[in-house]
Amino acid sequence: MPTYTAPVKDMQFLLHEVLNATATGIPGYDELEPDFTAAILEEAGKLAEGVLTPLNAVGDAEGCRLENGVVYTPTGFKDAFAQIREGGWNGLDLPEEYGGQNLPYVLATGVGELFVSSNMAFNMYQGLTHGAINAILAAGSDEQKQTYLPKMTSLEWTGTMNLTEPHCGTDLGLIRTKADPQDDGSYKITGQKIFISAGDHDLAENVIHLVLAKAPGGGEGTKGISLFIVPKFLVKEDGSLGERNGVSVGKIEEKMGIHGNATCVMNYDGATGYLVGDLHKGMRAMFVMMNEARLGVGLQGYAQAEVAYQNALAYAKDRLQGRAVTGTENPGGNADPLIVHPDIRRMLMDQKSFVEGARAFTLWGAHLIDRAHRLGDKQAEGLISLLTPVIKGFLTDKGFAMTVEAQQVYGGHGYIEEWGMSQFARDARIAMIYEGANGVQALDLVGRKLAAEGGKPAMAFFEMVKGFLKENAENEALKDGFLDPLKAASKDLQSAMMFFMENGAKNPNAALAGSSDFMHLFGHVCLGYMWALMAKASDAALKAGTSDATFHETKLKTGRYYMARQLPATGMHLARILSGAAPVMALEAEAF
Amino acid sequence: MPTYTAPVKDMQFLLHEVLNATATGIPGYDELEPDFTAAILEEAGKLAEGVLTPLNAVGDAEGCRLENGVVYTPTGFKDAFAQIREGGWNGLDLPEEYGGQNLPYVLATGVGELFVSSNMAFNMYQGLTHGAINAILAAGSDEQKQTYLPKMTSLEWTGTMNLTEPHCGTDLGLIRTKADPQDDGSYKITGQKIFISAGDHDLAENVIHLVLAKAPGGGEGTKGISLFIVPKFLVKEDGSLGERNGVSVGKIEEKMGIHGNATCVMNYDGATGYLVGDLHKGMRAMFVMMNEARLGVGLQGYAQAEVAYQNALAYAKDRLQGRAVTGTENPGGNADPLIVHPDIRRMLMDQKSFVEGARAFTLWGAHLIDRAHRLGDKQAEGLISLLTPVIKGFLTDKGFAMTVEAQQVYGGHGYIEEWGMSQFARDARIAMIYEGANGVQALDLVGRKLAAEGGKPAMAFFEMVKGFLKENAENEALKDGFLDPLKAASKDLQSAMMFFMENGAKNPNAALAGSSDFMHLFGHVCLGYMWALMAKASDAALKAGTSDATFHETKLKTGRYYMARQLPATGMHLARILSGAAPVMALEAEAF
Repeated sequence: MPTYTAPVKDMQFLLHEVLNATATGIPGYDELEPDFTAAILEEAGKLAEGVLTPLNAVGDAEGCRLENGVVYTPTGFKDAFAQIREGGWNGLDLPEEYGGQNLPYVLATGVGELFVSSNMAFNMYQGLTHGAINAILAAGSDEQKQTYLPKMTSLEWTGTMNLTEPHCGTDLGLIRTKADPQDDGSYKITGQKIFISAGDHDLAENVIHLVLAKAPGGGEGTKGISLFIVPKFLVKEDGSLGERNGVSVGKIEEKMGIHGNATCVMNYDGATGYLVGDLHKGMRAMFVMMNEARLGVGLQGYAQAEVAYQNALAYAKDRLQGRAVTGTENPGGNADPLIVHPDIRRMLMDQKSFVEGARAFTLWGAHLIDRAHRLGDKQAEGLISLLTPVIKGFLTDKGFAMTVEAQQVYGGHGYIEEWGMSQFARDARIAMIYEGANGVQALDLVGRKLAAEGGKPAMAFFEMVKGFLKENAENEALKDGFLDPLKAASKDLQSAMMFFMENGAKNPNAALAGSSDFMHLFGHVCLGYMWALMAKASDAALKAGTSDATFHETKLKTGRYYMARQLPATGMHLARILSGAAPVMALEAEAF
Repeated sequence: MPTYTAPVKDMQFLLHEVLNATATGIPGYDELEPDFTAAILEEAGKLAEGVLTPLNAVGDAEGCRLENGVVYTPTGFKDAFAQIREGGWNGLDLPEEYGGQNLPYVLATGVGELFVSSNMAFNMYQGLTHGAINAILAAGSDEQKQTYLPKMTSLEWTGTMNLTEPHCGTDLGLIRTKADPQDDGSYKITGQKIFISAGDHDLAENVIHLVLAKAPGGGEGTKGISLFIVPKFLVKEDGSLGERNGVSVGKIEEKMGIHGNATCVMNYDGATGYLVGDLHKGMRAMFVMMNEARLGVGLQGYAQAEVAYQNALAYAKDRLQGRAVTGTENPGGNADPLIVHPDIRRMLMDQKSFVEGARAFTLWGAHLIDRAHRLGDKQAEGLISLLTPVIKGFLTDKGFAMTVEAQQVYGGHGYIEEWGMSQFARDARIAMIYEGANGVQALDLVGRKLAAEGGKPAMAFFEMVKGFLKENAENEALKDGFLDPLKAASKDLQSAMMFFMENGAKNPNAALAGSSDFMHLFGHVCLGYMWALMAKASDAALKAGTSDATFHETKLKTGRYYMARQLPATGMHLARILSGAAPVMALEAEAF
């Protein structure tokens, strides 16, 4: 049975030594004193380790079941959800007026990682609610906010996102769900939505569905789409629950993983819905949910890699098999532990260097969101908008690959469900698909975000990396394995951008054929930059005579591994990008 | 529900236009006339398409069950197995004296691909039998051959390989299963074996277990290991079945995939066993099984990628979503098919170019085995010994990655079990682990095979590629996208080898830290070489005025994709290798 230990120390390092939270001047960050963030993270860690971790395998084995229209979650989920609710965890970063604590998003993100690592399927009930709250916050009326947000913040009610239909996922312009206006200002919603995570369950009194549908007069495609609140139970004027709305669960999907989360087919049969925001502007409101959701999904990618890594590491230290080629290291035993073997080390270092880099990247991204929201920092807003598809796409592709590598450390036992490593891979797999498949992230990055604001955010990113390289050109610790690889990788990224600029206009396929490679190239540069920032912080700590030299020396060594063994991927991605559209598009569709 | 079409045309191309089978002078290859091989492959294809494919999802959903000591396979497996038996498929390449047809292994390998693509879990019952037969052929006594081989060839009985124990897989020196010599020359076998594929079932009358165990006096480690035949039912002198032997199924493992195959814990409680080959020389006999098994597992990797690709392609042509960025291609519909999008194309071309290259590599490998066995060609034997870990490791790592990419083409539907794409990935995953985890393959390659015969096979490989480049330096079709990338990749491979030679002796970890990267680097060069061979053959066919120009033009374009977009990985692998042991081994085990 897998175990999990909350990586509080690493998060504290990032918050206080890399991001220097309290010194940023961002409103609310003054609260983030080390003792305070440690207390929050440790408390969340206890819940993750003691309550959510043991339920992870239970959720996988039992799954959810639909009986007479009622969805039941796996054994223990109800109690655990009550603990999340009672701890006020969902409201950590939500407005105080609706019962939240208004703490910075960066801290909520750290807490989120602990919950996702310990039980991804379980945490989605809360995660989807959080996203729905954000959409209502951004586009809902005051009355809607008063009606729904307090109960959703407290998790008495949960939320969902209803976009996909059987015939359309990415291309939402094709949706058929209809919204018929009623005399009282409400709408009757009719249609079928699929893949609705946390679509129904027995964890809360009510489920508030946010549904994209077409109301008359909106025209073709995405322009005609509006966003509606469709509660499972209608809410009376006094806030109590009224009659059951015309929405029901058609079935629960059998999936590769995240069995503990009920992925539902939702049938809307003239259900009462309330318009959120402006008529025919539903896509805009929904995108608010989707952007936060995308960062959260990127987090899922590395959070699953983290817990898989922890277990692979424990197994590698425990399992005796073979002898070190350089001489016996466990003379008392009849074999050495797996960790003595270089190829096992390689896999562990791959995982460790990825997860720590990804954590830094994600917390930095959350910090940029805080800057944008709390300081109105436009540059931060542009930057996080540019980086969101990289966080989502790169961290989930790599995160999944790392769960597979962690599984590999177990040999045959990795394939047996009992050991739990298969579940990490199966659960992590969905993160590459939902909230916009990674190919769509790459398209968003290359087709939209690169050119946004005339390319200003992309230029700002390069300036930032260049500035760092220049500022630290004489730092001996960084000269040892960090600066040159980061410079080379960053140059590869710029060459790719130049290629897109020179060729993309006359042949858009020349850019799009390289979009996924570009997303990976960009991701590597971001993680390389994160490692350089972390190395600088650890070097400073060592110079200042830190009491935890091992932690910081390990950081430097782990960073050097990433720079030496992962960053060279940028050259491969660049070569693929420069080969352009021709090899990719050479075949007629019929010739395949 | 996934579909499958046997790729007979591509196999015919490889047999007759690339390998030039009938012109090789290898005994038995004269039978391989195009009409004959087409007839065999089409007949096998019918069975694969019509009988095995529909049972693939059934096997996954139902799995095997153990009731009162009896193992039941999924619905339909028994009938299908009877058809395999009646068709004589298992004996295709086995000796005529035991009921086989003695056809070349290269043809049996082609047939094997069809069965594996259509139903990997099912085919393992036959595949393990085939391996066990080879071990008895290589090391068994005449009496053992007479007793077991005819019934195993006909699949009236099946076979298994029993190596792994709970505490040891790779490190077989640790095994504890005991063999106590009896007065009648037999042994009593006692111990527990795990992960025994096809360990028991209801498909055949008897199961012939090949078991590694320690008999007294053999000394420590692998030196003390002997190989035994342990039949489920003892065989009487007249060949009929006698009493039940002391071997039983402890449980069937719950696995990530290949649910249709019973992976058993086997308990040996003083079971009667018969020594195969020499006492304390069991490892040698077992390796005979393992080498063929490794090629067969490499085949599983790309065979799963093949069927996953076929379905991804069909979905990409069928599913309407979004519009081509270069202008609508399906004006009659409300969206264009997925295949218009460059990133979807990229995924399809990745899969197509990998699978076709891998098929060529595997059939070439099988052809080398034929050369070695039928011609006594020592150079071919050295070469296939060198390439076996590459075939196993590279083709299964990549094959799995390609099933994941095929699943990705389906978006959300790829994650739903009903669509079948998850099964391909879950089934393919095991191939990276069993028959020696891929890290062990890499170790075998770098630690043993490279240096075998003083490096002669490795040198012969380079000479072969170099010779090809020289001979075809003026071929215009090859100059267009094939020769330069192959030359560059081959140079990367040589640089890596030089690095190992210069550093491996004084620091073995310097080579081992790069072993997996070397295996991948080598794999890419092999597939690049295969693509160059195929391009040459297709170019020749086009020049000769082939009636199927589309097939050959598609080959050339697919090959150019591989060369332009996959071969650049060699530079990344080389950079990682050249970084040596330091980044990999920098941390003390306690510092992780």
